[in-house]
Amino acid sequence: MKEINIGICGLGTVGAGVLSVLQGNAALIAGRAGRKVCVLHVGTRSAKPDLNTEGMKVSDDIFAVVNDPDVDIVVELIGGYEPALDLVMQAIANGKHVVTANKALIAVHGNAIFSAAEAKGVAVRYEAAVAGGIPIIKALREGLSANKIQWLAGIINGTGNYILTEMRDKGRLFADVLADAQQLGYAEADPTFDVEGIDAAHKLSILASLAFAMPLNFDACFTEGISAVAPQDVSLASELGYRIKHLGIARRTAKGVEMRVHPTLIPYRRLIANVDGVMNAVLVKGDAVNATLYYGAGAGAEPTASSVIADIVDLARLGEASQDLPALGLASHALTEKTIVPINDIESAYYLRVTVDDKPGVLSHITQIFSDSGISLDAVLQKESDQHQGHGLPAGHVAVVLITNVIREASFTEAVNHIEALASVTDKVTFIRVESLS
Amino acid sequence: MKEINIGICGLGTVGAGVLSVLQGNAALIAGRAGRKVCVLHVGTRSAKPDLNTEGMKVSDDIFAVVNDPDVDIVVELIGGYEPALDLVMQAIANGKHVVTANKALIAVHGNAIFSAAEAKGVAVRYEAAVAGGIPIIKALREGLSANKIQWLAGIINGTGNYILTEMRDKGRLFADVLADAQQLGYAEADPTFDVEGIDAAHKLSILASLAFAMPLNFDACFTEGISAVAPQDVSLASELGYRIKHLGIARRTAKGVEMRVHPTLIPYRRLIANVDGVMNAVLVKGDAVNATLYYGAGAGAEPTASSVIADIVDLARLGEASQDLPALGLASHALTEKTIVPINDIESAYYLRVTVDDKPGVLSHITQIFSDSGISLDAVLQKESDQHQGHGLPAGHVAVVLITNVIREASFTEAVNHIEALASVTDKVTFIRVESLS
Repeated sequence: MKEINIGICGLGTVGAGVLSVLQGNAALIAGRAGRKVCVLHVGTRSAKPDLNTEGMKVSDDIFAVVNDPDVDIVVELIGGYEPALDLVMQAIANGKHVVTANKALIAVHGNAIFSAAEAKGVAVRYEAAVAGGIPIIKALREGLSANKIQWLAGIINGTGNYILTEMRDKGRLFADVLADAQQLGYAEADPTFDVEGIDAAHKLSILASLAFAMPLNFDACFTEGISAVAPQDVSLASELGYRIKHLGIARRTAKGVEMRVHPTLIPYRRLIANVDGVMNAVLVKGDAVNATLYYGAGAGAEPTASSVIADIVDLARLGEASQDLPALGLASHALTEKTIVPINDIESAYYLRVTVDDKPGVLSHITQIFSDSGISLDAVLQKESDQHQGHGLPAGHVAVVLITNVIREASFTEAVNHIEALASVTDKVTFIRVESLS
Repeated sequence: MKEINIGICGLGTVGAGVLSVLQGNAALIAGRAGRKVCVLHVGTRSAKPDLNTEGMKVSDDIFAVVNDPDVDIVVELIGGYEPALDLVMQAIANGKHVVTANKALIAVHGNAIFSAAEAKGVAVRYEAAVAGGIPIIKALREGLSANKIQWLAGIINGTGNYILTEMRDKGRLFADVLADAQQLGYAEADPTFDVEGIDAAHKLSILASLAFAMPLNFDACFTEGISAVAPQDVSLASELGYRIKHLGIARRTAKGVEMRVHPTLIPYRRLIANVDGVMNAVLVKGDAVNATLYYGAGAGAEPTASSVIADIVDLARLGEASQDLPALGLASHALTEKTIVPINDIESAYYLRVTVDDKPGVLSHITQIFSDSGISLDAVLQKESDQHQGHGLPAGHVAVVLITNVIREASFTEAVNHIEALASVTDKVTFIRVESLS
């Protein structure tokens, strides 16, 4: 078969990784692609003397790559919304397949991009946009195609998982670990996207659309970060048999689809509760296959390159037929909008920690409120102040820790309001959602 | 697009599962396949009054399905070598795509089957043959196509993993757990295939061929079962920070490819060490992606059906192009025979347990032998007889437990011969290979 010509836009960390893996494993990749994969043209604003661009056209205008008539596949690795969106739309208009690692772009503009690609008869692939090197897009789009997906839950931001792992292993404060992570290069100077869950929400909205055959709906994703997770919650969770993970959860329910990113208590016996450090994992529950889990590096130049090149090989291998596999697994017209359940209406179990005056009867006041609201409790724990030295519990105070059964969030927050109104409750109630993932 | 017509040969547990999932999720599967998936013809020797075969041709001759001119894809679910091989070869000769869940058939006759399919321009898919519902074939063939695979290690037999898990959790004997597993239906009346590692070796040889682009070579796979694993080894392993798992391991080395199934000590912190019960998992190390892991149900009607139908959907979606994706990821002519490293020549660390007379100096004799052979030790543990009550250690004897560094197996077994020749060593040495999987 004729060789396939790649144009790469952006030679940052990931672009350099793609180039290096394509060059290092060229023979093997050609074997799997069924033809030679040539990097014909690269677009980069700054010269990269450490990269081997021998035999390639090098342009400082990335649109020169997209408008190169000899380029078959445009690989977009510049990130962000603009000019990435223009670039991808122009590539499609020019009849080229697109491979991208850009989760923000797909999450926010994916519907427009996929429709344009379908109309033009080209493919858009984005394996690297979610969970780096883990082939989770392919698993959902193809590997689990027989299944009605019931729910999925993912650790899909390595920075956040690294921070939570360090907090647990070393009993440290969020802010301290974050500062270290920034020094180590695991976290950005502005960590908002990672620690507030926006990056995870981008990825979750992509996974949810694939799982539930619905158009992308990033704006409807509920997002809560990990910056408020306190060391005492991490250790209390451990004591109760849980780990705290920053999960993206998408679930099909009778009310619609739940789509939410937030800190979550998970029983420590679950495999995904043991995914530590910068690693990612996605747990998928299908009606036929039951639970499957996919684990690997969620970021990094070469793991991301692995996914980018897998997309390229697929397109090279299948040629014209690759356009027959729609970006979300179903043709756009076959996707259906789903109601996204507002956070108040979701159903979850809850961990809560209440700081109270150390006086008799306080615990029974709190449990009475839950009882009056028809909420059952799975666990109750009372901690004296001396057990939390250094964790900010003032003398004469007690931490009451409870885990509820699964209930509607609105009922839970109403009970929390009643608890906060008690005279003996001295501080705002801390709560974290709990998922059994069974 | 025109509907695609399926012929199913065999309506046992898996066949019934395929029928039930195809019927239950028909609309969703049609959406993902891009066209209706019709079960046109089923072949079954015995009537199945509990299955809905309305609108299907039902034959008691499975070859009637294969020779039906209207069938596009033959789904082989009868298992075993014959008549499955004839059936599949006839389907290919008739120009039909084949989907099979038959690991024994693929492991032993895959080379002939794949060559015939290539010559005829049809596809053979076998996702369900390895690790049930986990899309591991697709991950290796497509998802990780950019990678030179360095090694893979899998828990790929649910029965064996169930037995080892029970032995650890309850301190029970292999034979007792096996008897229970047979009663529960987790193990066959003749458990040889499962507990002696033959089933795992079938699957491992398929994974190794995909990973290392080599023809299938089941006969070269080293196989050691779990029937000799003793409860005291399970508990000593725990004490040393390990779990014993029945692993299939394939590794690319300078000497060739290692391909071996045997009980293995794995550090308990590894995610795969925590895959328990009947679940399966495969850990794959690629040069670009680093470690990825795939976890799920390795058997069962519906998980297996999930993989069978994923193959059907792929073929339906891609139509004529699906033949362009060779069964092992590369065209047959691009596969290269690899030297399979004989077990004596592999490199591994080793756990060994030596029963000795409780006399001074015995331990130093043993460690001296390793020292003389140039073998370093990672751990040494001595256990008095009273600590192993009920585990068959006679009074006046001591168990010496050691873990070596990574060495050539031949050097290790030579040292073991020297140890067994010591007068104070009263029994054969027990040894189990150790893998760090890092």
